[in-house]
Amino acid sequence: MGDKGKKGVVLLSGGLDSTTTLALALEAGFTPYGLTFRYGQRHDSELKAAEKIAQQYTLGGHIVVDIDLGTFGGSALTSEEYAIPKGVKGDSPGIKIPVTYVPARNTIFLSFALAYAETLGASDIFIGVNALDYSGYPDCRPEYIEAFSTMANLATKAGVEGNPITIHTPLIHKTKAEIIEEGVRLGVDYSQTISCYDASKSGQACGECEACLLRKKGFAESGQNDPTNYV
Amino acid sequence: MGDKGKKGVVLLSGGLDSTTTLALALEAGFTPYGLTFRYGQRHDSELKAAEKIAQQYTLGGHIVVDIDLGTFGGSALTSEEYAIPKGVKGDSPGIKIPVTYVPARNTIFLSFALAYAETLGASDIFIGVNALDYSGYPDCRPEYIEAFSTMANLATKAGVEGNPITIHTPLIHKTKAEIIEEGVRLGVDYSQTISCYDASKSGQACGECEACLLRKKGFAESGQNDPTNYV
Repeated sequence: MGDKGKKGVVLLSGGLDSTTTLALALEAGFTPYGLTFRYGQRHDSELKAAEKIAQQYTLGGHIVVDIDLGTFGGSALTSEEYAIPKGVKGDSPGIKIPVTYVPARNTIFLSFALAYAETLGASDIFIGVNALDYSGYPDCRPEYIEAFSTMANLATKAGVEGNPITIHTPLIHKTKAEIIEEGVRLGVDYSQTISCYDASKSGQACGECEACLLRKKGFAESGQNDPTNYV
Repeated sequence: MGDKGKKGVVLLSGGLDSTTTLALALEAGFTPYGLTFRYGQRHDSELKAAEKIAQQYTLGGHIVVDIDLGTFGGSALTSEEYAIPKGVKGDSPGIKIPVTYVPARNTIFLSFALAYAETLGASDIFIGVNALDYSGYPDCRPEYIEAFSTMANLATKAGVEGNPITIHTPLIHKTKAEIIEEGVRLGVDYSQTISCYDASKSGQACGECEACLLRKKGFAESGQNDPTNYV
């Protein structure tokens, strides 16, 4: 158990990983402050999921920040120019960057989390990154998170004044099945969460993109019932 | 001289420092891509200055990104709750954080610059931070910039694929007078730039805030004519 009631900023996308992260922050005794981004996603069903989840839990606060990642283009997740690829990328050594990679996304998200934390006087940030399933995303690796923490503590008033920021990544070494088991143990309602890169306006998952396939596989391996609403 | 025509992202606020940085990037042979933020400043004369300056120079591109720093409050530069302090903070050892410090501002700005650079295929970012005049801002120090670079190269496709990002800070160790001398040498029209924290809607500087006093002192020490439009 962490310090009872200590404020923690939780990046909350409305997906399976961030919702489980929120449940873990609560279990550790933090008062979570949710931070969600409207960043030029193709649709806003993910955003609606985040808002619904924020209402289900007892949060200290929840803010939705508009940012303009679409301006930069460069990813299938924000641009109409790319098609969402179906299937899982092949296993191969080294880092392969998928087209769903949004330039500098986690860096931008964590930077806003840092601003929010500093404004709240919080020194804890929770992010549901995962190094196993998303090894193609350079900004999901432990060495990246460690470098961000070092930078954050040089960047901020809190860091400079001896109250260092900690970036918590409780899922970083877990498989999708292990994440789901944790969430089920904590009573997470996964039917409310959206992982799909290509969900319909009403929030139905495509069942065929990489995120859907990883999610399906996770439920299968965990032996848990998959409550996802597929088209 | 740098590589002729190599793309470089230049953070352009419309102030004296960022405009001089732009002129230095051009002198070094870069094709600059300007990046300006609308971030809940109290007024937009700074923004207009940035747009005017971007038109005066030959840029590869210029984008203005809307971000929502005002949501977080916490600074006299974005919130109506604080009064802009007049005068220069006292010289004293150690870091003192002024109320004009915006939480994590340079971290957020550099994160967007990183996204823009990655989208352009650029590996150079220019920022006009200064460690002497702004020693109260933790995110203007060389050790901060170094930590950001390390993080950036772990975060991004470019860094991972062996094309590292360089953060250029050509003003970091210069006095305001030295910055002005560089700019005058390069033909910068400082009457177009706005440094004031409390400028009027029409872009007149207050002459009394810390930024104005440092700017006045810089012109006085450099022996250059001060073309600033004061109220």
